[in-house]
Amino acid sequence: MKMNELVELLLEIATLKRMPRTGWQMRGVPHVESVADHSYGVVFVTLALVDALQDEELDLEKVLVMALLHDLAEVRVTDLPVSATHLIPARVKRQAELSAITALLAPLPSGERWKALWQELDDRTSPEGCLVRDADKLEMIIQCLRYEQAGSQGLDEYWQSMDRRKWHYAFSAELYARLKEMRPGSG
Amino acid sequence: MKMNELVELLLEIATLKRMPRTGWQMRGVPHVESVADHSYGVVFVTLALVDALQDEELDLEKVLVMALLHDLAEVRVTDLPVSATHLIPARVKRQAELSAITALLAPLPSGERWKALWQELDDRTSPEGCLVRDADKLEMIIQCLRYEQAGSQGLDEYWQSMDRRKWHYAFSAELYARLKEMRPGSG
Amino acid sequence: MKMNELVELLLEIATLKRMPRTGWQMRGVPHVESVADHSYGVVFVTLALVDALQDEELDLEKVLVMALLHDLAEVRVTDLPVSATHLIPARVKRQAELSAITALLAPLPSGERWKALWQELDDRTSPEGCLVRDADKLEMIIQCLRYEQAGSQGLDEYWQSMDRRKWHYAFSAELYARLKEMRPGSG
Amino acid sequence: MKMNELVELLLEIATLKRMPRTGWQMRGVPHVESVADHSYGVVFVTLALVDALQDEELDLEKVLVMALLHDLAEVRVTDLPVSATHLIPARVKRQAELSAITALLAPLPSGERWKALWQELDDRTSPEGCLVRDADKLEMIIQCLRYEQAGSQGLDEYWQSMDRRKWHYAFSAELYARLKEMRPGSG
Amino acid sequence: MKMNELVELLLEIATLKRMPRTGWQMRGVPHVESVADHSYGVVFVTLALVDALQDEELDLEKVLVMALLHDLAEVRVTDLPVSATHLIPARVKRQAELSAITALLAPLPSGERWKALWQELDDRTSPEGCLVRDADKLEMIIQCLRYEQAGSQGLDEYWQSMDRRKWHYAFSAELYARLKEMRPGSG
Amino acid sequence: MKMNELVELLLEIATLKRMPRTGWQMRGVPHVESVADHSYGVVFVTLALVDALQDEELDLEKVLVMALLHDLAEVRVTDLPVSATHLIPARVKRQAELSAITALLAPLPSGERWKALWQELDDRTSPEGCLVRDADKLEMIIQCLRYEQAGSQGLDEYWQSMDRRKWHYAFSAELYARLKEMRPGSG
Repeated sequence: MKMNELVELLLEIATLKRMPRTGWQMRGVPHVESVADHSYGVVFVTLALVDALQDEELDLEKVLVMALLHDLAEVRVTDLPVSATHLIPARVKRQAELSAITALLAPLPSGERWKALWQELDDRTSPEGCLVRDADKLEMIIQCLRYEQAGSQGLDEYWQSMDRRKWHYAFSAELYARLKEMRPGSG
Repeated sequence: MKMNELVELLLEIATLKRMPRTGWQMRGVPHVESVADHSYGVVFVTLALVDALQDEELDLEKVLVMALLHDLAEVRVTDLPVSATHLIPARVKRQAELSAITALLAPLPSGERWKALWQELDDRTSPEGCLVRDADKLEMIIQCLRYEQAGSQGLDEYWQSMDRRKWHYAFSAELYARLKEMRPGSG
Repeated sequence: MKMNELVELLLEIATLKRMPRTGWQMRGVPHVESVADHSYGVVFVTLALVDALQDEELDLEKVLVMALLHDLAEVRVTDLPVSATHLIPARVKRQAELSAITALLAPLPSGERWKALWQELDDRTSPEGCLVRDADKLEMIIQCLRYEQAGSQGLDEYWQSMDRRKWHYAFSAELYARLKEMRPGSG
Repeated sequence: MKMNELVELLLEIATLKRMPRTGWQMRGVPHVESVADHSYGVVFVTLALVDALQDEELDLEKVLVMALLHDLAEVRVTDLPVSATHLIPARVKRQAELSAITALLAPLPSGERWKALWQELDDRTSPEGCLVRDADKLEMIIQCLRYEQAGSQGLDEYWQSMDRRKWHYAFSAELYARLKEMRPGSG
Repeated sequence: MKMNELVELLLEIATLKRMPRTGWQMRGVPHVESVADHSYGVVFVTLALVDALQDEELDLEKVLVMALLHDLAEVRVTDLPVSATHLIPARVKRQAELSAITALLAPLPSGERWKALWQELDDRTSPEGCLVRDADKLEMIIQCLRYEQAGSQGLDEYWQSMDRRKWHYAFSAELYARLKEMRPGSG
Repeated sequence: MKMNELVELLLEIATLKRMPRTGWQMRGVPHVESVADHSYGVVFVTLALVDALQDEELDLEKVLVMALLHDLAEVRVTDLPVSATHLIPARVKRQAELSAITALLAPLPSGERWKALWQELDDRTSPEGCLVRDADKLEMIIQCLRYEQAGSQGLDEYWQSMDRRKWHYAFSAELYARLKEMRPGSG
């Protein structure tokens, strides 16, 4: 029974491979990455950031799990675009995600522990949460740059919203600045 | 200015062509129809139903507009799958859609009139609303049958939920019964 | 029996979701809209035009049905690109479409009435036919602009052919002019 | 100038890579081969047939060119499905293809020679034409079998039409029989 | 300069989102997952296995990094299918992957450490390596089951090769057995 | 038995329709041609070159077969991108391709003859081999131009590598120069 629930979880997770990142899709990007594609990227960027920062305070195991789980709720809630988050109250979205995470992680013996890590992402004081939030946005803008390098246009909003962002780590801001210099036509 | 708003509306509507019907996508259907694809089908099925019913009470103009607009809010809210509607309260979803419809239709001189038609879909006593609701579900199951005829599997839930449905018109129920007989392996 | 024919019609209509708009495809546009996608757009643009014109002469029910049916024959004849219409006499194409429409609409009690509306699209004196023809071209150029905004190139022919077009309604010409101003690089 | 025409031809030919084989597409096959995909297969099957037949009468160079060119006109006329060929007279389609071939091959010094080979495909007495016609159908049914082996359904019509076919070569009939034995569920 | 190398690495990693898992593609699976899709799944399955095993010997941080990196070399070497690995000596493939990993991870301060973890996957005595190898295969068969549940056929080889597999952990074997029971038509 | 082997060969060849040309894919080109698509183009360009050159020394039958077979080994080895050929020794790749070709062509009575033609492509002294090598590169750059004309960017490497190329025939160099003049933004 517990085994059956675990198997159901693993089968459901695979749905993230078929869930498109809706922001790109609505803007007409030709080949839209999946939520799983993006999440893989976030885990990798997280590893790279932790390594580059050489900050002993940061718990690698913790940030990797956070990065792995950060978009997990989307397997049920889907990747709501900005136009939807303007219409659905943040509180409601948050509660929906929390319920999804709770149900999804229930078959895992340490489900409560993973759920606590997922919740910590919201905590502005946790360095690990801050790091993964930076990694999430960096991965997004890396993909944005890849799309633009391949010919996509109409993605200025992504850069504009990142220009306004307060990065949690100076290194993230540096990485972002370097990526922005690489935009086609930016030089 | 009003012209600009109208142009913005028409450009935004085209986004429905890139929005996948998420139920199919999450179940691994290979070529997922867009919300615009589905909506076209619903308008056509609506015309066919009205014609077949020969019910003089039904206002054709009204049902066509209702069918055209029934999923319009999804251009901002997206096509939330069942897993999401279990997590986001129906009231919140309804309010989000209403806000979207209000904003979307504002540039049209008769925007209030179209919005009222959209709202009437919820009204269980309006024959036109009932008809379009039947057309919406019939179109869905027609597409489901097409997917199954082409080799898709794992779509039993769609049929099961239609089996439980109380069709508003006897003719819709007949059509559904006929479609069900055509399922591969049903004979 | 009549029911069976109606079911066959509804199943066949769904094929429009898989039929690509060939003009885009041949020019290498990445994500090609379906004929159903386009047709949905035309019905919506038609509603918007009628509303904006506030012309009491126009019969809304009539134009909506016309817009819905205008590309219906393509479910059998396919969306022939310009290169094909240069090689297949217009008369032959017209006859093929008429035969397709006749056969397709036969299962509907008012099939003859819908067919007459489809034919009226050719009639240069009918205001409704003129309106839907404008809506058809406006929808095409709206999609063209969306493709260009997302990075597509090589679509100048579409704009050039619209520059030469005599719009039936001054409002259509205005809308087109506004859309043209929005072309990337046009300002 | 002649060079420019040749370059235009070569660029246009590449469009065959974006032209879907419409029969599969209308039946909901997930990943539809292009006309270029199919044509490559036909050239290969042609080579294999000639080799297997060991018939000294057959001119290999001739059949390879025939196979290469057999669907070339589709770059302008498109791959008309059966539903369209029922509505467009065979004579008109043939004339359209001939005009396309004539214009397409004009930039080549031996354009007339290639065109004559293309025309010979219609000649029931030419052994080379007969061979390429068999190869064309064998390639189609090979692809059909591949689709079915991968899970596609609803392709019975293809087999039924081949069952009725009079193959020009006994070896083609043998190959077809062997392919049919391999259909999923046929044993 | 070091920053530039890091940025180049992060941009290159995003290529994994466009690299198809070739085994599925060659068998005609309609919607082929990317290497990034699969890798995300492997990291998640790894977390689930470690959690389920409750084996204190296993270092979670270590297995997560191993899972993250296990297919990283494919960003340069690509996902070689079985037909290719029969033709390219295992030693050569291994060396190519090692060179790729070495170059890819060079910009990271702890590049050597991550590389050592990647190499440890080959080590039959390391429990972490064994776990990630099980997770890699379980993720593959989970995706295989998802494809079959959606209608794909012709994937028996995957199950046959897993039937012959010696799982490193009894729990993996149990999970596999449960997945196999869920194959369509298996009951 | 020989028949069975031939059927297996023909079914396997069809896999080339699902094999992407990896160079485009890794650079984010939206709609990636298949190896079969490309190979069809190479056969056609080969015919055009032979015809344009009017060189009586060239054996048309021979070059057509060479062009048809030039990428055949990729059905097993796949289309290895430049990043992979930097890591896998040329000798190993060559041997893998030769083994693949040998096994693939074995069911054909003249398999040895076709294999010899495939090998001759490497022979710098054979005029036919040189011609097909030019055709292969011309076809690639034609497709590259088509992608750029449709809006793709980031493909400069293709042109740069062709700029360095020593074309075997002056006519190929002329064709290339003409194609380069047509690059968007080149005038």
